[in-house]
Amino acid sequence: MTDISTLGEFGLIKHLTHDMKPHNASTLCGVGDDCAVMQYSTDPADTRRVLLTTDMLMQGVHFDLVYTPLKHLGYKAVMVNLSDVYAMNGTPRQLLVSLAVDRRFTVEHMEELYAGMRLACERHGVDIVGGDTTTSLTGLAISITCIGEADAADVATRSGAHDTDLLCVSGNLGAAYMGLQMMEREKKVFMEQKGQPETMVQPDFQGREYLIERILKPEARRDVVERIREAGIRPTAMIDVSDGLSSEAMHLCEMSGVGCRIYEEKIPIDYQTAVAAEECNLNVYTAALNGGEDYELLFTVPLAQHEAVAQLDDVHIIGYMTRAELGRKLITRDGNEFDLKAQGWNPLA
Amino acid sequence: MTDISTLGEFGLIKHLTHDMKPHNASTLCGVGDDCAVMQYSTDPADTRRVLLTTDMLMQGVHFDLVYTPLKHLGYKAVMVNLSDVYAMNGTPRQLLVSLAVDRRFTVEHMEELYAGMRLACERHGVDIVGGDTTTSLTGLAISITCIGEADAADVATRSGAHDTDLLCVSGNLGAAYMGLQMMEREKKVFMEQKGQPETMVQPDFQGREYLIERILKPEARRDVVERIREAGIRPTAMIDVSDGLSSEAMHLCEMSGVGCRIYEEKIPIDYQTAVAAEECNLNVYTAALNGGEDYELLFTVPLAQHEAVAQLDDVHIIGYMTRAELGRKLITRDGNEFDLKAQGWNPLA
Repeated sequence: MTDISTLGEFGLIKHLTHDMKPHNASTLCGVGDDCAVMQYSTDPADTRRVLLTTDMLMQGVHFDLVYTPLKHLGYKAVMVNLSDVYAMNGTPRQLLVSLAVDRRFTVEHMEELYAGMRLACERHGVDIVGGDTTTSLTGLAISITCIGEADAADVATRSGAHDTDLLCVSGNLGAAYMGLQMMEREKKVFMEQKGQPETMVQPDFQGREYLIERILKPEARRDVVERIREAGIRPTAMIDVSDGLSSEAMHLCEMSGVGCRIYEEKIPIDYQTAVAAEECNLNVYTAALNGGEDYELLFTVPLAQHEAVAQLDDVHIIGYMTRAELGRKLITRDGNEFDLKAQGWNPLA
Repeated sequence: MTDISTLGEFGLIKHLTHDMKPHNASTLCGVGDDCAVMQYSTDPADTRRVLLTTDMLMQGVHFDLVYTPLKHLGYKAVMVNLSDVYAMNGTPRQLLVSLAVDRRFTVEHMEELYAGMRLACERHGVDIVGGDTTTSLTGLAISITCIGEADAADVATRSGAHDTDLLCVSGNLGAAYMGLQMMEREKKVFMEQKGQPETMVQPDFQGREYLIERILKPEARRDVVERIREAGIRPTAMIDVSDGLSSEAMHLCEMSGVGCRIYEEKIPIDYQTAVAAEECNLNVYTAALNGGEDYELLFTVPLAQHEAVAQLDDVHIIGYMTRAELGRKLITRDGNEFDLKAQGWNPLA
């Protein structure tokens, strides 16, 4: 018998699905990107594309109800799915929401969870059109499927990056990871003093609000997708940063058949992230490269669009793509080169 | 705090979603039927409809790995979703498969599960186009989303039944429920003799093969949908029998604003189901009315199509629809009338 961790999440999926061939003309793109891409129309010339993505969140693995309010959890569960649609340069339209709850969950708990989901949907103009609600033996399981739309010409996959394209990222990185460290630390202190909490721990996070918000209530970057579009820029490839910059950059390289050079000093870091990292005695770039859950957008654009991209608000050019044989490199402040390593969070490790 | 069981699954969903209004023109029908109905096309006159449905199966609640081979489980998990698409008179096209597994599951276990899912997909021409694979603290969770297609004119909702329409059901009912009783009985005997089994229990089910197959490896009734279509019959309403005939007939009545009369003697029962029910000292019609997981199709057709329906292979006319004020009635063999009660399996009871 083979331990699943020997393959990891991506290896396992590849192992199970690599030889599947589509049966349907409507299936344009299957497993392997942020979304699958479909075409449903009686007119084959119709350029509307349908995007499909799904995520499963398990209590005790993906979230800890000791410090996660249910309303925030609902909001986040929706956002991580919307983020996958934006990462294809698409617009999210519908959600299916499946929940499994054990007997400790009440109607009021479900109302809280739903309030967060509905708020996220309202803000992004998305409709909850179905789902399943059932029982679990223990804990909460949330499975959300999001359906989005895009015009064929706009769809940004992971495989379109070219040698010399600029590599850009929105917002800043590592904040969600440092927020998680802050909450885990407070939980530990609480439990050492008072044992397993019966209700939610609500410590004082003054000066850390931004980090806590980044981990508990991330925002999918529709604004960035819109700004890129308004500026007339079409990303050649795009992915959202859920497992850390290294892991995502390597996905772009692998799927596009290119290499990359990322400049450490160009990686955007928030002030609170830097302070918290120093306090925890962590290298802040390690948090940015390998900490997950930032839900920023990482994308490539043709070098010719340098000027347009440089003017975009809250978008940072952190490097460029190279020929594959030049490898996937991180250039540190002192000019050293290292191979990127995907040390992002592996749910199956 | 309010216990979820006071509302039940359908009550809870209604409570959480009743006031939601769609934001998108592509959302034609949301929560409340076997599938949600979408229209994605740049041409508003396009009659292609996209159907969406999702189901979540939790270990210990929906399946027991003591007597359920993983390959069968994968097959069934897909079938219950396909069944929802057929129940809309549609054709399933794509699947998204999310799995959460604890550390006891190996690569070989996942291969078995996937083998069953792929077999079901092959047989029904469906593509697995994405999903999520992650860890759970304990047990296996399976969440599947199915996307189907139908022409607008063919879509059969739960709300189109009229007074005097004939009520029809495919195949036979109660077999899956009796299969479940057989397996539970064997498990109990095994555990009394030998304690908690370490590997799967594989007792001899001679003479019960059909019942065991109905619970472990149900088949979504594409053949029935095709036969109805070939005969030029358009169901006015349709639903699949997952929670028992009573519960499903009541859904059709409620959504269509009609009543019904179901004749006990017309309810199709397989010989093995009848024998097993007698052996277990159960009323076989109780199994048919309230036992779930048959995945047969329950549908209504205009009275004028009586002759065409009566000639259909493996389809049975079990009653007819009435005006709502006449109630939802079961007529027993001896001519007594009873109100139908939805005593089907409630996952949140």
